[in-house]
Amino acid sequence: MDNSKSLSEAFNAAPVQLAGHGKREVRVLKEAFAGVEEHMASDMYGTGELIEEFQAEMAEVLGKEAAVFFPSGTMAQQIALRIWSDRKGSKRVAYHPLCHLEIHEQDGLKELHHLQPLLLAGKDRLITLEDVKNMGAGIACLLLELPQREIGGQLPDYAELEAISAYCREQGIMLHLDGARLFEVLPYYGKTAAEVCSLFDSVYISFYKGIGGIAGAVLAGSGDFTGESKIWKRRHGGDLISLYPYIIPARHYYRQRVDKMGQYYAGAKELAALFNGCHNISTLPEVPVSNMFHVHFALSREQVERILITFSEETGIGFTPRLKETGEFSCSYELNIGDLYGGIPKAELEAAFGLLDRLLREA
Amino acid sequence: MDNSKSLSEAFNAAPVQLAGHGKREVRVLKEAFAGVEEHMASDMYGTGELIEEFQAEMAEVLGKEAAVFFPSGTMAQQIALRIWSDRKGSKRVAYHPLCHLEIHEQDGLKELHHLQPLLLAGKDRLITLEDVKNMGAGIACLLLELPQREIGGQLPDYAELEAISAYCREQGIMLHLDGARLFEVLPYYGKTAAEVCSLFDSVYISFYKGIGGIAGAVLAGSGDFTGESKIWKRRHGGDLISLYPYIIPARHYYRQRVDKMGQYYAGAKELAALFNGCHNISTLPEVPVSNMFHVHFALSREQVERILITFSEETGIGFTPRLKETGEFSCSYELNIGDLYGGIPKAELEAAFGLLDRLLREA
Repeated sequence: MDNSKSLSEAFNAAPVQLAGHGKREVRVLKEAFAGVEEHMASDMYGTGELIEEFQAEMAEVLGKEAAVFFPSGTMAQQIALRIWSDRKGSKRVAYHPLCHLEIHEQDGLKELHHLQPLLLAGKDRLITLEDVKNMGAGIACLLLELPQREIGGQLPDYAELEAISAYCREQGIMLHLDGARLFEVLPYYGKTAAEVCSLFDSVYISFYKGIGGIAGAVLAGSGDFTGESKIWKRRHGGDLISLYPYIIPARHYYRQRVDKMGQYYAGAKELAALFNGCHNISTLPEVPVSNMFHVHFALSREQVERILITFSEETGIGFTPRLKETGEFSCSYELNIGDLYGGIPKAELEAAFGLLDRLLREA
Repeated sequence: MDNSKSLSEAFNAAPVQLAGHGKREVRVLKEAFAGVEEHMASDMYGTGELIEEFQAEMAEVLGKEAAVFFPSGTMAQQIALRIWSDRKGSKRVAYHPLCHLEIHEQDGLKELHHLQPLLLAGKDRLITLEDVKNMGAGIACLLLELPQREIGGQLPDYAELEAISAYCREQGIMLHLDGARLFEVLPYYGKTAAEVCSLFDSVYISFYKGIGGIAGAVLAGSGDFTGESKIWKRRHGGDLISLYPYIIPARHYYRQRVDKMGQYYAGAKELAALFNGCHNISTLPEVPVSNMFHVHFALSREQVERILITFSEETGIGFTPRLKETGEFSCSYELNIGDLYGGIPKAELEAAFGLLDRLLREA
């Protein structure tokens, strides 16, 4: 029996899903375009009202002089680091060992830009001011990811973030924000996007995480920085004749969801408490600091798959299509709260978690 | 008076346009998605039925083992040349001096891949077998563009193309096709896409030239070549979570227009003859070999702008929003025949060209 396939099937068949905003299907695009006038002109190679207005809006939100829309964060962030590296005359940059550039991009930063990343901190913890102070000389740019996704979406205290920023400015080290989930951390910090971004020289944000768009990213910074980034965007093959199929959904879902991040965050805390009340489950972080966390099971992946299939069949609730094996007797998955969570009645949820706890105890 | 702006305004205000398929506006996307089921699942990082089926369809059309959908041709072609360069262990590639990679990509090939292009032939003519034989040793890959856009869309004789292909195979030089307008040249050659592509080791095609989609490209070749191209696509930041906003329009307009290329080609020949009948105008090529050609005026850009504005106001026909200055007393523009041309009554067109000829004689 192919358990992995079965969990995925059970998840897809479940009428209720805990996480996210709903399935990634063509409806997402159609809804975003429903109210858009047919004769609206396309953007053309980065120019035109449609792209320029959205870039200006995002620059203002992020408190930066200018912003550029990119097809992907992979492209935007490599380019940001390349620009800072060229300006500083050093190929050395620093980031977390589980940074997106290090583990999800087939080493594009090294293969295309020949940058040499220094991996700061351990794989299981955040970068600290101490780590930054111990980087040694010659680092052109430090990249910080808020929240640090691969460790459950953890965040440094705001005071530590400010101290890191102050240290980098003092040392002439450029500070870049991987803000793929920036809006998601604002309720915890109690800050505006512009306030957080003011600590950084350049910022990338994504439109298909908490925002729930289709794809696309924005890179923001000073006008000369973003101007240079457009040249690299062309070089990377990202200066598409038309990016509006991503821009219009980005704008639509940004406006629809940016003010719901507090609600998602509250949902994540509530849900993490329910998970932590179950035998053999712990969440990372224990108390979420954004809309995301990781669920860790102290049982083998095969056992948990069987339990989640049963759970899904009995309750109609799907948790995840797949589990990550983290050891012989441990596995985990990532969870992001979105629109769907709020639609599940609390009593139903508590009853379901009662069943989950029983299934885990009996395992 | 800002003539350039006025020509653009006159063009945009003209109810009839000679070239293309219509304005690049949101309608193009909406039409393509109108018949698409809302619950169709998105592609996910290059996987899923939607992308895989279209890639398989294109591989078959091009007679290649496999095909990969890319957001842009800029990305696809740099990657093709990089793969062949790595395999051959040489950074030297060859292409035309007006190749897209040389003049429109901010030197991405050099800045990101450190390849060293040898520019073959003159800027005003096609690459010949003789040029290829004189390239010297150590060229990993030769890129040929069919048709050669920047010189009006000229084509080599098919026999010469076959001879270049045979020579490259004999010498172990990889041959890559810039087929941005591949479908557009098939009526002239009287060949299928697969027949033309069989002369090449790798092929790129575009979906927003004659096909009239929104953006996007396909790179095709052997399975190991396309497999490697996917790794580079990730590195470039082109492996987007969802490419369906481009794939669905590409498929829609491909099916709608691929069989109309003969009609566009016939229209281009007819229209070029009308232009060539006018004083101070010549087309390049004189007799088109695809749906495209360049219109050259033997008058200053300012003069021609004034004439085209008058022409447009009197006839309601718009030629172009802008002219390229090619000398003190010469200018030109590029023209691609699409769906719109067939809708203009012949008598109206001939009367209009009578006026154009008069305006040019009086200039």
